[in-house]
Amino acid sequence: MQLRVAMAQVDTRVGDLAGNADLVVRWAAEASAAGAQLVVFPEMTLTGYPPEDLALRESFARASEQSLVDLAGRLAADGLGALAVVVGYLAHTEGSGPAPVDEPPTDDDRPSDANPRRGAPRNAAALLHGGEVVARYYKRHLPNYGVFDEARYFVPGTDLPVVRLHGVDVALTICEDLWVEGGPCGVAGEAGVDLVVSPNASPYERAKDDLRLPLVRRRAAEARAAILYCNQVGGQDELVFDGDSMAVSPTGELLARAPQFVEHLLTVDLRLDPSAVPERREGRVGPMTVTRHVVSDEPVPPYEPRPASIAEPLSDCEEVWRALVLGLRDFIDKNGMPSVVLGLSGGIDSAVCAALAVDALGADRVHGVGLPSTWSSEHSLADAEDLARRTGLHYSVVPIAPMVDSFHGAAELTGVAAENLQARVRGTLLMGLSNQHGHLLLTTGNKSEVAVGYSTLYGDSAGGFAPIKDVPKTLVWELARWRNTHARGRGETEPIPQNSIDKPPSAELAPGQVDSDSLPSYDLLDAVITDYVDRDLGLAELLERGHDAEVVARVLRLVDAAEFKRRQSAPGTKISLKAFGRDRRLPITNRWRETLPTVREGAAQ
Amino acid sequence: MQLRVAMAQVDTRVGDLAGNADLVVRWAAEASAAGAQLVVFPEMTLTGYPPEDLALRESFARASEQSLVDLAGRLAADGLGALAVVVGYLAHTEGSGPAPVDEPPTDDDRPSDANPRRGAPRNAAALLHGGEVVARYYKRHLPNYGVFDEARYFVPGTDLPVVRLHGVDVALTICEDLWVEGGPCGVAGEAGVDLVVSPNASPYERAKDDLRLPLVRRRAAEARAAILYCNQVGGQDELVFDGDSMAVSPTGELLARAPQFVEHLLTVDLRLDPSAVPERREGRVGPMTVTRHVVSDEPVPPYEPRPASIAEPLSDCEEVWRALVLGLRDFIDKNGMPSVVLGLSGGIDSAVCAALAVDALGADRVHGVGLPSTWSSEHSLADAEDLARRTGLHYSVVPIAPMVDSFHGAAELTGVAAENLQARVRGTLLMGLSNQHGHLLLTTGNKSEVAVGYSTLYGDSAGGFAPIKDVPKTLVWELARWRNTHARGRGETEPIPQNSIDKPPSAELAPGQVDSDSLPSYDLLDAVITDYVDRDLGLAELLERGHDAEVVARVLRLVDAAEFKRRQSAPGTKISLKAFGRDRRLPITNRWRETLPTVREGAAQ
Repeated sequence: MQLRVAMAQVDTRVGDLAGNADLVVRWAAEASAAGAQLVVFPEMTLTGYPPEDLALRESFARASEQSLVDLAGRLAADGLGALAVVVGYLAHTEGSGPAPVDEPPTDDDRPSDANPRRGAPRNAAALLHGGEVVARYYKRHLPNYGVFDEARYFVPGTDLPVVRLHGVDVALTICEDLWVEGGPCGVAGEAGVDLVVSPNASPYERAKDDLRLPLVRRRAAEARAAILYCNQVGGQDELVFDGDSMAVSPTGELLARAPQFVEHLLTVDLRLDPSAVPERREGRVGPMTVTRHVVSDEPVPPYEPRPASIAEPLSDCEEVWRALVLGLRDFIDKNGMPSVVLGLSGGIDSAVCAALAVDALGADRVHGVGLPSTWSSEHSLADAEDLARRTGLHYSVVPIAPMVDSFHGAAELTGVAAENLQARVRGTLLMGLSNQHGHLLLTTGNKSEVAVGYSTLYGDSAGGFAPIKDVPKTLVWELARWRNTHARGRGETEPIPQNSIDKPPSAELAPGQVDSDSLPSYDLLDAVITDYVDRDLGLAELLERGHDAEVVARVLRLVDAAEFKRRQSAPGTKISLKAFGRDRRLPITNRWRETLPTVREGAAQ
Repeated sequence: MQLRVAMAQVDTRVGDLAGNADLVVRWAAEASAAGAQLVVFPEMTLTGYPPEDLALRESFARASEQSLVDLAGRLAADGLGALAVVVGYLAHTEGSGPAPVDEPPTDDDRPSDANPRRGAPRNAAALLHGGEVVARYYKRHLPNYGVFDEARYFVPGTDLPVVRLHGVDVALTICEDLWVEGGPCGVAGEAGVDLVVSPNASPYERAKDDLRLPLVRRRAAEARAAILYCNQVGGQDELVFDGDSMAVSPTGELLARAPQFVEHLLTVDLRLDPSAVPERREGRVGPMTVTRHVVSDEPVPPYEPRPASIAEPLSDCEEVWRALVLGLRDFIDKNGMPSVVLGLSGGIDSAVCAALAVDALGADRVHGVGLPSTWSSEHSLADAEDLARRTGLHYSVVPIAPMVDSFHGAAELTGVAAENLQARVRGTLLMGLSNQHGHLLLTTGNKSEVAVGYSTLYGDSAGGFAPIKDVPKTLVWELARWRNTHARGRGETEPIPQNSIDKPPSAELAPGQVDSDSLPSYDLLDAVITDYVDRDLGLAELLERGHDAEVVARVLRLVDAAEFKRRQSAPGTKISLKAFGRDRRLPITNRWRETLPTVREGAAQ
């Protein structure tokens, strides 16, 4: 039994029902032209993911239901009715209007405490064929940790629909269902199916691709079926989705794999053995109710399969770089901003942000401004100019001394207040240029700075997007070296001045100031941040792991105190397990400070 | 059967295990001195509520367990061992360290998808007596809507402990358990108890006190028992808790009620009829397992009950005013800020914020700064001075023209960019004073402004706390009038200049500018905001409710576009159902715009 299937790894837009439907029609046409009988789109294709509280707005949920029905009709009208299309959407089964879904909620289908709205809304996927909605699946396992809040939004499903397509029994599941042993894949295995489709919205994390293939393999074994894993691609506020779609055979063989960070149609010819499925059940199977739907019993006539492609994995640095580029590009483009502006200090952070922006948007949409002060060193302007020349971005210089002086004429500001003043004058100037010319201001702080609050609120932290907010300083240097090496390898100009990489980092807000006056060295700092923030270890565990007690005490004090700044800062692409985005939620008003005796002793050593 | 019970409506601090334990000991001593046999503290007394992601930090959860055990010992050592004390805490039953809780998790006690951490952590309450932890209860119903995220943090409980105290059977529940029909109160009713205690952390909303009494009455009827409802009081970031603790008899009679917005020990003499409880069961009852614990069978010898107090309800304006004062005071004090600074424009918003700050902190901790520009009208400075004189706050004046001019010398900024520049110069000056003197900067935007984005990012929106962020402009005026009337009634100086109330609102960033140039009138605007933001109605419903189509189209466009500013803005006390705080979560990157044909027709009328 053969089937040509496709995974359309597309970049949807949250809330854009019409645009996302267009995207489905366009890619379905490509899948059809490639000879596919089935094409799978990512989770919540029509609404985009995550829709957050939009999911709770009834008018939006109703519009999503309507757009699904309209899409089925439109695909058929466009001559694509013979192609089975699996799309994600937001389902809504209740409300003051007419209920657009025919099945009444089952008895098991109780609203949970977490979501008291009976029957609505749900994270859903449907199989469209011949102008009709053939089957609807409601996500069963609702992740509610890290960046996920699905218990806030959705009622879990209880039914597992299986659709027979050219004799192949296809079970529908969604994303998190695949991560749960004994979940819908287990039920599919007991019920007897040939193929499981899994639309996903799985956010990028560093090296997450290494986790996915073993996971899909385990689930294929449990389902005793092939699995089509289709993940969305693109940036959405703090999140970036990397694609990495794949097909795995019932025996766990990787059949095809899509590249990360690009829209892609991954096609693969499946050869399935119906006799390997001893029994095909419906009705109650384990905790779920299996329903069977027949589109066509007739197998596809035998044909010569085409070789499928398996994308090569990217290096760690290239993977991160491309995640950051995509996250930045989609934030700017999806929000309709024509261009960006950023301050260029000659330092490594602004240089890397500028190089990312040029890679994301092209040099013509990037405006760099040198903003030298009394305390700027000579190399600062020279390095900024060098960067501008190397990348081709628009460059101008505005010395800030006159503005700084005018404030000093009005109020006596000394010490840190005077340091911050310079940063705020720069922020005010850059926001002025942003308002005047329609650029979005990029803020260039890295994760280490954001973690310890080493920045000026409304100064250098001002901006609408923070390209390297989730990148620790030590990785910023690594990325800079990688990007230059990558350019050399391709015979291109290295974008980042070597001097910006080599010189000691400095805020240059006071004479001779360097970061190491205020902070531990970045290798020590980043190591503690990783364990304290990303791994959530407590003080005792940090000391057990060998971190220096004095550094730990200092870093924890800074990180705890900086929560307030972080709560007011711009979104930035998340690349690691626990970024300073929506997946870390701490009170501002919070007296928890770990000061065990062991630390005080340590600090006194 | 008699029992003297107390509810200690206290203001805890998130994360301050030691401080909160001190608070419990102090108030338990008062309850004991008042002759009480039982005292109930609010939900999560020891950790404060809500602890947010602190709940996920193992070191914190372990410390919470330890502090509970220590507290039991300390109460006994202080001679309070005979008093039964119900306190909330964060329970932790698993981890690499020794498990401090003796019960193993039951079979029913499975981790949910929403919270995959088996057995830990839990939102818990314990009854302490005689130096021991007599019983532990784990919250069963975990709210996960609005401002609540409990599915993210906690595993639900399955056991209902009932403790016999002087012959009175006392069932333990927590907060949301009380809102669920057929929940633990129903189980208590079937199991047979005399009294249900309910520690709460129920955030203030306008007129929520009108909901609580009928709710507690319904649950008393279901439990066939008296209910002690103890709610916390105080501000915590965006939330403010109002207290409003109460005791209700098994027949629904309100026996005692505490005032809102103050710490208070509410005592009441209960007279309970053990024969009204026909049966007393343990083991499986409905979905829960009832456990019985005996502290003492011997009833309290008969005594003459004392009359209990029932606090008078506050007027709507006084209730809101006091919520805002308490939210502001606790944010400032709990974060250790000595004082606040704010810009005084002579307008109503800054005048109301200043009056709130003076009520919250005293005039000596409030610093107002007049920041006139070229476009400021004469009455602006006069009204600001009048306010300063009336309230006694510290006042100074810094004209901003020299700073504004210095920027114009460096970059050509016109139109909106020039308007925003003035606001940012003010923000920079105020932040400079904040940094120099250690004041926290208050930002004075109201909910109507915040909703439509009528403010300057890093300008007038700069600040660490937004006292009236959740107050619509029309209510700002109402509150100002109420506050002045209230002062007159007490023979005090009216704090708010009548001219600030009466004059047409203006940002004064351009010659002759008034708000109505850019916005619909505030009565129309606030009505649409209430329906669109607070009630989440869609476009069609808004039109059905009679809002003007053109106003609706304009307001929706503005509200949708302002999400980005709101995501970067300061916390402010929440007073209504759906504030622009953590209980409204919308994507920044979001293409959902409701533009039904009916609207376009409407707009063309």
